[in-house]
Amino acid sequence: MSAAATRNTGQDPLWSVDDHLEDILAGVQPLEPIELQLLDAQGCVLVDDVTVPVSLPPFDNSSMDGYAVRVADVAGASEEFPAALTVVGDVAAGSTGKLQVGPGEAARIMTGAPLPPGAETVVPVEWTDGGLGGGPVSAMPARSLSPEGASGQVRVHRPAEARAHVREKGSDVKAGELALEAGTVLGPPQIGLLAAIGRGTVRVRPRPRVVVLSTGSELIQPDEELAGGQIYDSNSFALTAAARDAGAIAYRVGAVADDADTLRSTVEDQLVRADLVVTTGGVSVGAYDVVKEALSSVGDEDEPGSGIEFRKLAMQPGKPQGFGSIGPDHTPLLALPGNPVSSYVSFELFVRPAIRTLMGLKDVHRPRVRAVLSADKALTSPAGRRQFLRGKYADGHVTPVGGAGSHLIAALAHADALIVVPEDDRSVEPGAEVEVLLLG
Amino acid sequence: MSAAATRNTGQDPLWSVDDHLEDILAGVQPLEPIELQLLDAQGCVLVDDVTVPVSLPPFDNSSMDGYAVRVADVAGASEEFPAALTVVGDVAAGSTGKLQVGPGEAARIMTGAPLPPGAETVVPVEWTDGGLGGGPVSAMPARSLSPEGASGQVRVHRPAEARAHVREKGSDVKAGELALEAGTVLGPPQIGLLAAIGRGTVRVRPRPRVVVLSTGSELIQPDEELAGGQIYDSNSFALTAAARDAGAIAYRVGAVADDADTLRSTVEDQLVRADLVVTTGGVSVGAYDVVKEALSSVGDEDEPGSGIEFRKLAMQPGKPQGFGSIGPDHTPLLALPGNPVSSYVSFELFVRPAIRTLMGLKDVHRPRVRAVLSADKALTSPAGRRQFLRGKYADGHVTPVGGAGSHLIAALAHADALIVVPEDDRSVEPGAEVEVLLLG
Repeated sequence: MSAAATRNTGQDPLWSVDDHLEDILAGVQPLEPIELQLLDAQGCVLVDDVTVPVSLPPFDNSSMDGYAVRVADVAGASEEFPAALTVVGDVAAGSTGKLQVGPGEAARIMTGAPLPPGAETVVPVEWTDGGLGGGPVSAMPARSLSPEGASGQVRVHRPAEARAHVREKGSDVKAGELALEAGTVLGPPQIGLLAAIGRGTVRVRPRPRVVVLSTGSELIQPDEELAGGQIYDSNSFALTAAARDAGAIAYRVGAVADDADTLRSTVEDQLVRADLVVTTGGVSVGAYDVVKEALSSVGDEDEPGSGIEFRKLAMQPGKPQGFGSIGPDHTPLLALPGNPVSSYVSFELFVRPAIRTLMGLKDVHRPRVRAVLSADKALTSPAGRRQFLRGKYADGHVTPVGGAGSHLIAALAHADALIVVPEDDRSVEPGAEVEVLLLG
Repeated sequence: MSAAATRNTGQDPLWSVDDHLEDILAGVQPLEPIELQLLDAQGCVLVDDVTVPVSLPPFDNSSMDGYAVRVADVAGASEEFPAALTVVGDVAAGSTGKLQVGPGEAARIMTGAPLPPGAETVVPVEWTDGGLGGGPVSAMPARSLSPEGASGQVRVHRPAEARAHVREKGSDVKAGELALEAGTVLGPPQIGLLAAIGRGTVRVRPRPRVVVLSTGSELIQPDEELAGGQIYDSNSFALTAAARDAGAIAYRVGAVADDADTLRSTVEDQLVRADLVVTTGGVSVGAYDVVKEALSSVGDEDEPGSGIEFRKLAMQPGKPQGFGSIGPDHTPLLALPGNPVSSYVSFELFVRPAIRTLMGLKDVHRPRVRAVLSADKALTSPAGRRQFLRGKYADGHVTPVGGAGSHLIAALAHADALIVVPEDDRSVEPGAEVEVLLLG
């Protein structure tokens, strides 16, 4: 940037929050899908419709531990006049045996085991003497301890209708049915369903890899000793955690000193593992704002959409912002302001939706609700800026936490919402309704 | 278990869902705290109060890019009659220099840089000619391109009050103040605050390591070919994902065949990496229910609280349940029924609260709300059982998904809530208010 270019020819144009977000999202596309093992796909978005290849359950099976019998053989049975049947063997879950149940016969059958040929219904073990010759039993003895239970005689104390306690083949889902629609986010039950229909891998959009780096020669690592003029780097920690929270695989590079060459080469080094780069600091109007200095010129003039653009937004906190793409793959980059609260608010408004767009999610924004302002005095807000204040939300009410100062990181840690004061409002009275972004 | 022990002497006692949950949680204690790197502690619970060791900001610093000056030197300044000051140098963020600002002098200062001795206030660069000798500028030229900006003369166009655009030492938090309370869950802003006050590590309760294994000789891995009587193992996938979702580090062991010795040795092998063991299947009344067979006898009679107890609960689905502890460290173990929906509902009701108790969270349960039932016909429910039906919740209404059959895993994958029908209700009419557990 030449010195002449910094001359002020009146007011700088301010971009609206919405226009800036729109421009960012226009430059971010969902990542190319890959085939992942089921458990690696947790939280990811399904790319294709998944149909059921095989009916579930895949065969008629027992829903109880009991005896597989013919209906006629137990008709009219009672505890006083039980039906006595010959036990021809066990059908365990996973059984592939060829046991047949003929007239006057019963097969001892376990939950989930296939209904054997000849059997028409299942009587639960609690409706029988369990082969012990006494009253009704509450359970079968373990096969390994009492192998004789698979033979001998069983007395059945109650009749059963045809197909009682039988789960029919295809009664859960049928082959060819739609199991899950493209666009479904894979949570635990969806992963369970995919496993149940035999899918060991699935095509999804992967989690984006997000590289986070902060800039500033004043920044040192936590646990080091502060010297004069130094502060601890917190942005790279907070935003790495926030990127993970949004669904990304996040890499914290840490703090880079205010030197344009170092910054440029660090960013270029990281591109190999980045689907998105997030920087903090160095985007304002100072003489040492190296992100602006280093990245204003990275674009290729012949490539549309290439390069990083720096803007001032009509918002507070978070006025200076940069965005664009960098490197041979046009990796998206968002350059946030360096103040911890500004960078965090900017992350919520711009980076989180970008990450969720990369993931292919439909719903990329935090939920917004209307709430009644609980406060001792009116909130004030600068004209022409959309203000985002830290707040605590509960039961339709929101209470401001800390003041409007953009450096109040302690307040941020006790907030769970952002109170939105529109551009045209210069104050909001207690009791008024406000828009609230729920952060949690 | 002897054959005689299975004789039924009337009705089996049924445990209530609430009593069972209470017994489980009584046997689960929060894990011992460990010191973790900040980003490894994300989602964990802080064990100690954290106080601020050093005031933030640690020194008076500029909140703008501009010039540090004396108030008297810019009093009455205007664009027509600017105050002309000698620029004595730059104060960049991180600067530890000994620059002094005397009468008639200005130091060019960057956001976050320490206010130099002698300076009383900061005028933003936009209120000056930026040293260029013209009208007001919108930014400073980059130091690396225009080093002369750190010297020469600057014209200031507006006066400034004392301490304007100065962030005072300690204005965010003061040394000795409480930064975060014990019990706080560490999300991104809390991690940011800890970093900002210089904490690189933090004492938290670690994520519990949860080992998930399913049992059943009928189970094969997804992507294998189904033979007669076989089904795909889905529980170990769904519950591993659900354990992660609850905050745990989850290990999926997979399916173990119905053999008591194999099961016992597999569980014992896994104890080395388990804070909690979850099994599915083999807990009912059949002759091949190996979890019951293998684990009923693992307890040490001389050790109170040792061993696994098997119960029937007054609930549907999920009647048979086992719980207790196993191994030399009394590792908690929950033995869930094998049916996919039964195991998933049991996980939500019993395992998730246990995981969250291990984490030290105060709020271990899913949120519960009241909702109006939207349905074509009344829901029916067995007397004396608390029924949990899959449902979809939106805007105060809940709609059942799928039927009451406990094997409807496809319905579960389209539900986001469980509809609770109390023990005493045998039916619920459309339009009635019901309790709903929100799953997501």
